[in-house]
Amino acid sequence: MIPVITAFERSPDRGRGLARDMRVRWALEEAGQPYQVRLLSFDRMKTPAHLALHPFGQIPTWEQDGLALFESGAIVLHIAGRGAGLLPEDPDGRARAIAWMFAALNTVEPPIVELSMIRLFERDAHWYAQRLQVVETRVRQRLAQLSAYLGDADWLDGGFSAGDLLMVTVLLRLEGTGLLEEHPPLEAYVARGRARPAFMRAFEAQRAVFLEAQGASGPPPAPAT
Amino acid sequence: MIPVITAFERSPDRGRGLARDMRVRWALEEAGQPYQVRLLSFDRMKTPAHLALHPFGQIPTWEQDGLALFESGAIVLHIAGRGAGLLPEDPDGRARAIAWMFAALNTVEPPIVELSMIRLFERDAHWYAQRLQVVETRVRQRLAQLSAYLGDADWLDGGFSAGDLLMVTVLLRLEGTGLLEEHPPLEAYVARGRARPAFMRAFEAQRAVFLEAQGASGPPPAPAT
Repeated sequence: MIPVITAFERSPDRGRGLARDMRVRWALEEAGQPYQVRLLSFDRMKTPAHLALHPFGQIPTWEQDGLALFESGAIVLHIAGRGAGLLPEDPDGRARAIAWMFAALNTVEPPIVELSMIRLFERDAHWYAQRLQVVETRVRQRLAQLSAYLGDADWLDGGFSAGDLLMVTVLLRLEGTGLLEEHPPLEAYVARGRARPAFMRAFEAQRAVFLEAQGASGPPPAPAT
Repeated sequence: MIPVITAFERSPDRGRGLARDMRVRWALEEAGQPYQVRLLSFDRMKTPAHLALHPFGQIPTWEQDGLALFESGAIVLHIAGRGAGLLPEDPDGRARAIAWMFAALNTVEPPIVELSMIRLFERDAHWYAQRLQVVETRVRQRLAQLSAYLGDADWLDGGFSAGDLLMVTVLLRLEGTGLLEEHPPLEAYVARGRARPAFMRAFEAQRAVFLEAQGASGPPPAPAT
């Protein structure tokens, strides 16, 4: 059976590819695995039916042949473990690629998400400027370490892997902050990720969902930056 | 060869088992795998030698037979993949347990870490009370969802797994906040984790490191709560 994933019916990122279904779509495209998408409204995400699939009421989820999964990292690892191209064949290289998956999600992403939340929800708070500086410092530290480690390599550990896939999607969330641009090696790294045909197919697929929802009921979308 | 992990020479949590080496020690104890520990000072963690092992200059790391890993989640998964008892044998159950590992680290832990950081570093800021409320609300939402999902089950998905191991260590970080106590199913869940002999051995091992460092140079430790 073709796997079914879930995604936002109308993504709050306006089709910029920052929602977490993008990671799963990209992994599926890298693996050459066709898939179906079930779109969910925000209301639908809080229903018992969806909570049975995703205990935290989020997207994406994965369903295939009786197996249901949640968490984009786990779904990407599941896809990577079955197809070719997302994890090295040798066990040591595989373990290191998985370490980068966890590093992307548990070490690099949290301060970046915190930064997004401040910029979204605390912009009018009287502490905004001070908090912004604190969290930007935290993000900058991670970026400096990552950039130093990457150096002039194309990918984090040899060939492109699921670790790079997750790291690139995490770094994409810095769009518009100016922080990525402080590290040319990381800017080039993200650009390499975006240039992959599988990334582009996944990006267009999620963007098409947003454009369709907009076309049905709203004003034209802002251009992707 | 026996694996070598790294840990704090003097843990900032004063031996309360909240540092991330605890996860790895617990997994090793569950798997019945002997290990050695190399202790690191904060200065040592920022040296090129350690950064080559851990690009973000943290603990724990893993070294065995030429393989070096970082990220506690990745190390626990590596241990779980080789020994018995931390992941189900059937592929679907295995994938679901791994989903809980990612859920612990990418969905539940980030707001809990944010809460710890506010309590540690922003206590004197004039925005402390307001920010505390915002982040506590975020943590409460995750706990309510997790508690609803767990219900009266012992573990998250059938038998104890690496997903439970990580989730319990993440929830332990709420010690002293009073938030866990709002959800008796989660309190009982954490207590079940702490009662496992492997947990207790790991806890004593990391606590012994702190006690020894204290004994060598400082005042007696605060009692573990």
